[in-house]
Amino acid sequence: MENQQVLIERLPSGKLQAEDYRLADAPMPEAGAGQVLIKTLAFAITAGTRAGLQGSASYAGAPSAGRVMNGSGVGEVVASNAPNIAVGDRVTAATGWQQYAAMDAEHVTVIDPAHDPIHYLGPMGVNGLTAYFGLLDVSNPQAGETVMVSAAAGSVGHMVGQMAKIRGCEVVGVCGSDDKGRLLVEQLGFDRSVNYKDANYRQNLKEATPNGVDVYFDNTGGMILGSALFRMNVGGRISCCGVVSQYDTNTPEPGPKGVPGLLVNNRLTMRGFLLFDYAERYAEAREDIYSWLNSGQLTSLQDEVVGLAAAPNAFVDLLSGGNVGTRIVRLDQ
Amino acid sequence: MENQQVLIERLPSGKLQAEDYRLADAPMPEAGAGQVLIKTLAFAITAGTRAGLQGSASYAGAPSAGRVMNGSGVGEVVASNAPNIAVGDRVTAATGWQQYAAMDAEHVTVIDPAHDPIHYLGPMGVNGLTAYFGLLDVSNPQAGETVMVSAAAGSVGHMVGQMAKIRGCEVVGVCGSDDKGRLLVEQLGFDRSVNYKDANYRQNLKEATPNGVDVYFDNTGGMILGSALFRMNVGGRISCCGVVSQYDTNTPEPGPKGVPGLLVNNRLTMRGFLLFDYAERYAEAREDIYSWLNSGQLTSLQDEVVGLAAAPNAFVDLLSGGNVGTRIVRLDQ
Repeated sequence: MENQQVLIERLPSGKLQAEDYRLADAPMPEAGAGQVLIKTLAFAITAGTRAGLQGSASYAGAPSAGRVMNGSGVGEVVASNAPNIAVGDRVTAATGWQQYAAMDAEHVTVIDPAHDPIHYLGPMGVNGLTAYFGLLDVSNPQAGETVMVSAAAGSVGHMVGQMAKIRGCEVVGVCGSDDKGRLLVEQLGFDRSVNYKDANYRQNLKEATPNGVDVYFDNTGGMILGSALFRMNVGGRISCCGVVSQYDTNTPEPGPKGVPGLLVNNRLTMRGFLLFDYAERYAEAREDIYSWLNSGQLTSLQDEVVGLAAAPNAFVDLLSGGNVGTRIVRLDQ
Repeated sequence: MENQQVLIERLPSGKLQAEDYRLADAPMPEAGAGQVLIKTLAFAITAGTRAGLQGSASYAGAPSAGRVMNGSGVGEVVASNAPNIAVGDRVTAATGWQQYAAMDAEHVTVIDPAHDPIHYLGPMGVNGLTAYFGLLDVSNPQAGETVMVSAAAGSVGHMVGQMAKIRGCEVVGVCGSDDKGRLLVEQLGFDRSVNYKDANYRQNLKEATPNGVDVYFDNTGGMILGSALFRMNVGGRISCCGVVSQYDTNTPEPGPKGVPGLLVNNRLTMRGFLLFDYAERYAEAREDIYSWLNSGQLTSLQDEVVGLAAAPNAFVDLLSGGNVGTRIVRLDQ
């Protein structure tokens, strides 16, 4: 029995293409000492992993040609050499894009059997936790403030907006199509949405934020960050979460005008963050998120494809804005 | 008797020129109800006022053609209709570039007779208070951390570096000549200096910051901010004080590369501030600063010219980096 994988064929030059990946069969891995063997049920595709393909990452195991593509997955333990994890447990871990993964137990989180494991790829996983800490901890919006979020229909963005509503804020989402915008308002309770591809985007943003913007959650950088800077109120905060506008290219734009001039004039704070700095507080966050899911205050949008072979195209499509909510690849094994 | 003034002849287009100002005589002002009449002894010229000449300021009294040029001064009260201010008191106020100014008492601060009034244009005035709050409050450097400051030989910068030394930090100053750099190290106790006009500036900065940069105090924006972003350690803080590289032009540069990408990867915070938000804490700051001046821990550099007629050229020269420390115009009246 073999282990089907999606390997990085080459680091992309310019825009990512499906041909930058290839399917391959590897020998079935075995659980070593202190390890578990996980059969992958599904994994999430997230824009942030595109940054790791730019070849500048230098940590051990950084993406490179010949490696299995990295990503967060959920699965079932089929063999265990770890005392606290049993065969049959559902777990979440950085399985990567493959059918089976042998992983050190310390990097594996057992999922409460009461929970749908797919939630650990969305609201209870990396995306939901990123929204939670990046919004509530980094920029701490207050009731009545206006919160703007970019890539608002994306895996992180659609949860940021809903969490801001739970906090009692006015919420404006920026996304790349009118259909997505309608969905944010009609299904998720956003107050307004703005399509950044519209020729009148800047004027529309102005009209959608009549009281200015107090907190901007930035998933994109680039032009949308620039437009937000000009709408920020005195004392405004910007959570810098990601730079999706700059990932899929070899020629990143310069930073937006207004940095640092507008930061000074309006006493703005821009703060970058990475989720793993909050690892000690994941459990606390998951309690909140789980209660919001149960009460119906938080809706998780998913967008699924099936089979490892579909993953490369699903990633290319996501980078051009094709997804709504969390893009998940379910394995048909 | 008349009141000699320097008027704004026109808002500058492109680089500021001395011809953008003219000397004029106005009738002697009188102290109205609740006002004092101040005879100006000296005023400071600061780069930040160049921003106000860009024509975008919209507050009452914003600089415009025909107005007296604005600036902080010190002087002696020669007439008073205010209960708490007496004739003969030394005061500091936004006198502007003129021999006499009639001002509402609430906008006038009486100087402790024990203090040299000139200190209220430097360490005890706008420049020193800006260094104090912008460094210690906004970015809160800790002993052992590396602090980098741009325009390091300028009115704010030379005090930022010394305050960082008082906090026990390693201090690296960026300035525009080797002479200034030597002065920072030899006279003010900076650990190292780097000349941004040197062709090897980036390499020199790297060598001058072997442990990276934890706190960057940004007076310039532009290229130097860009270079600092690439030296920042994880968790670094940037105090955004001013954008002198962008004031004296009609065509500001885009923001630096690395915004927001480096902010995310290294969890950096950039925070803009304006001094007047700290008005309630000026007295507390002045106590600290006065004690540092007395103990010799803080040295104030001044750079003086004499006479109102010299002020326009002194400003033009300051914007091209001609000053060391606080540029002061003493009136010869």
